[in-house]
Amino acid sequence: MTAISPPSAAPHRHLLGIAGLSLPDIHALMSLAEREIAVSLGRDKKKAALKGRTQINLFFEASTRTQASFELAGKRLGADVMNMSVANSSVKKGETLIDTAMTLNAMRPDILVVRHHAAGAVALLAQKVGCSVVNAGDGAHEHPTQALLDALTIHRRKGRVARLTVAICGDVLHSRVARSNILLLNALGADVRVVAPSTLLPNGIEQMGVRVFHDMDRGLEGADVVMMLRLQRERMEGSFVPSVREYFRLFGLDAQRLSRAEPDALVMHPGPMNRGVEIASEVADGPQSVIEEQVEMGVAVRMAVMEWMMGNEETAS
Amino acid sequence: MTAISPPSAAPHRHLLGIAGLSLPDIHALMSLAEREIAVSLGRDKKKAALKGRTQINLFFEASTRTQASFELAGKRLGADVMNMSVANSSVKKGETLIDTAMTLNAMRPDILVVRHHAAGAVALLAQKVGCSVVNAGDGAHEHPTQALLDALTIHRRKGRVARLTVAICGDVLHSRVARSNILLLNALGADVRVVAPSTLLPNGIEQMGVRVFHDMDRGLEGADVVMMLRLQRERMEGSFVPSVREYFRLFGLDAQRLSRAEPDALVMHPGPMNRGVEIASEVADGPQSVIEEQVEMGVAVRMAVMEWMMGNEETAS
Amino acid sequence: MTAISPPSAAPHRHLLGIAGLSLPDIHALMSLAEREIAVSLGRDKKKAALKGRTQINLFFEASTRTQASFELAGKRLGADVMNMSVANSSVKKGETLIDTAMTLNAMRPDILVVRHHAAGAVALLAQKVGCSVVNAGDGAHEHPTQALLDALTIHRRKGRVARLTVAICGDVLHSRVARSNILLLNALGADVRVVAPSTLLPNGIEQMGVRVFHDMDRGLEGADVVMMLRLQRERMEGSFVPSVREYFRLFGLDAQRLSRAEPDALVMHPGPMNRGVEIASEVADGPQSVIEEQVEMGVAVRMAVMEWMMGNEETAS
Repeated sequence: MTAISPPSAAPHRHLLGIAGLSLPDIHALMSLAEREIAVSLGRDKKKAALKGRTQINLFFEASTRTQASFELAGKRLGADVMNMSVANSSVKKGETLIDTAMTLNAMRPDILVVRHHAAGAVALLAQKVGCSVVNAGDGAHEHPTQALLDALTIHRRKGRVARLTVAICGDVLHSRVARSNILLLNALGADVRVVAPSTLLPNGIEQMGVRVFHDMDRGLEGADVVMMLRLQRERMEGSFVPSVREYFRLFGLDAQRLSRAEPDALVMHPGPMNRGVEIASEVADGPQSVIEEQVEMGVAVRMAVMEWMMGNEETAS
Repeated sequence: MTAISPPSAAPHRHLLGIAGLSLPDIHALMSLAEREIAVSLGRDKKKAALKGRTQINLFFEASTRTQASFELAGKRLGADVMNMSVANSSVKKGETLIDTAMTLNAMRPDILVVRHHAAGAVALLAQKVGCSVVNAGDGAHEHPTQALLDALTIHRRKGRVARLTVAICGDVLHSRVARSNILLLNALGADVRVVAPSTLLPNGIEQMGVRVFHDMDRGLEGADVVMMLRLQRERMEGSFVPSVREYFRLFGLDAQRLSRAEPDALVMHPGPMNRGVEIASEVADGPQSVIEEQVEMGVAVRMAVMEWMMGNEETAS
Repeated sequence: MTAISPPSAAPHRHLLGIAGLSLPDIHALMSLAEREIAVSLGRDKKKAALKGRTQINLFFEASTRTQASFELAGKRLGADVMNMSVANSSVKKGETLIDTAMTLNAMRPDILVVRHHAAGAVALLAQKVGCSVVNAGDGAHEHPTQALLDALTIHRRKGRVARLTVAICGDVLHSRVARSNILLLNALGADVRVVAPSTLLPNGIEQMGVRVFHDMDRGLEGADVVMMLRLQRERMEGSFVPSVREYFRLFGLDAQRLSRAEPDALVMHPGPMNRGVEIASEVADGPQSVIEEQVEMGVAVRMAVMEWMMGNEETAS
């Protein structure tokens, strides 16, 4: 732990998206995450795995829960964690994205956790800095740790991901969560559907290897997992914002609609939920919901990702 | 410290208000707090009592000093501390209080320190989560750690609380500090008075076992402790906001008015002070003021509360 | 590490400005900082030098990078670090500067790192509190750690500071960085020039022992170090704000202008940069730029300052 090496001695391992992960990487991450779960359940929630390491959470877009999850993950691994909410920082003084990142890079972090409102911004940063970078969400592009935690949740509940039918429902167009999940679930052999009005689907979504449904009842038929998405009205322009009432009637998940899926289907949501918009409380709080378990798996997955980036995957206990 | 137990194995100890504390609890807390004082005075201000534990400060209402006091208390006990200012978080995205709490709960904290603008909100949260909860102020209801630190300050200066005459003066109506103090000081055998205009007193305050004075000079006569309250003009509606000049003339504490109390009377204020509104600088900075000592006791009391909730009261050094 | 001593037992060492430092102090700090550099380069970036100590960053003016630098410095020294952004705190509730400081002081920090918009405010605080105080920038007065990190950067690149020609260019009037640098570079025997329009120079600047140039080309001639300052338009009043285009034409640094300086002249900037205003990207990102190295030295210098204040300069490894 005390050897001094220049920060550019080895190429740094990043997690920029599911797209860049090999299947062995995915399995290594999932299996490491499985082992991290126990850490948060004990009285002593602290490992020394990243003792002496510096983790900076660089959020150009506010996100209480994702930042909190990364912060706790880092602290439980023993790292020094620093939060930088750049929403209200020197970016206001006219500093560019790259200048901000280079400034932090010069402070010699080991890990940068970055969220940015522009697709591709995190990958751009990763090319410039001398440390490992995790994408904590970049525009409508990817949110890989969310997909990993979703897969881990499914795997723990169902014993497998392969050959399960997963219906991803709602605002797919604005959702990096949907995109990362489609990539990961397909890689793991699931049968993935998207269920949404055509106005909330990106062009060419079929080419990602999913079946498209525009009718909620039909899209849920036989699903083992129902993954609801947050309706991102804050990202929509004026006339295209659907009426909440109409949206719920057509694409909201309530108990009756859920009955179309398999009787033991899991209900998932990445949060924060719009209750009464995309999901009814009877379902969000019902027996099939694993929404809180997703959050719990989030801490474990982020611990795993950071240990893996630091090269600890074999030795992690 | 390494045994793994499910988080719901035992009922969790909370501190939701003075109202729920037994007299033995109060004495245990005060005596533990007394021992914590020395920690902050040494060169090494760090204990290992809560090493590996996670403390989340969940503030739905901004409070620099209370949050800072809890943060330092947790860090000095060796806990991992995370601050969540929900004022500017996903609550904005339409998430409910309960969803926010359940999300944090799923991250497996050991202690949630919660401030909320609504009376009862903290107790509601405590029923939902699987960890210990401290009320750091809920609306005009309770602020138990403030009352405990006030009692500790009085006890250290006067050698006792019982049979002292304590005058609580000013905006009692909007004050959770007043409410918690009345409950605690009465439990400890003090003779409690409230001194305020009738418009700043809640209905039925007499039933809490206090004597009511509407005249400041008469209310201070013979007092051993003068506890000033912050005039919470931000909580008053338009026409009921008193003029500052008039308020100070009638209910502000200056040297002349203080001379009505006992010569060695303590002057207290929970902060932040409105100098020239409820208290004159000559008194706030004068020899009878123990206002800074209150802040110092605050860290010790919060350390004690968190150790006590974690079941450490016997072993704390 | 466990001896208990009252916080006022010894006078506390502060760093309020370069003005108060003796030459031996400066050399001790620079040499200690040199040794701290290695800490941030290792895998284990953590020392135990300030274990058990409490550092509070009290920023009355937002500054992402300076606060981050102090936060990492403190964490790498093992201290407990707490950030207080008073811009959005109880100062809003009408609390005074002194009350805020006294409140924090009562929580028994060992080190207060203070930034304030008023010159002299930090020195005033230092007289009131019972701990060591670092000035992290007070109005247009001083920013001593910036000057120390600049000198350290120059020293590492050039092997000395004495007898180098340093041109400080741009908005000297609003710059605490310029002021602290003039004092420190002069103390270390450099030949210091300021290059600026007369409207951006304070009256009597010549009495600080600098040569004044109003023409950029002539001011850069023969310079070993070109230190650009941020144009602080946010501190200027209406009619005196120069046009950005005009400013760049006259006082901006581009490659052509830089060629007037020595061929191996260093280009420095305290950040955040206004690209295209005071500096062109070709220069900021060019081979002569040491701007990122300045940031890196910043962490080392702040570690050194805090160890020095705590009396560790002899034992630091």
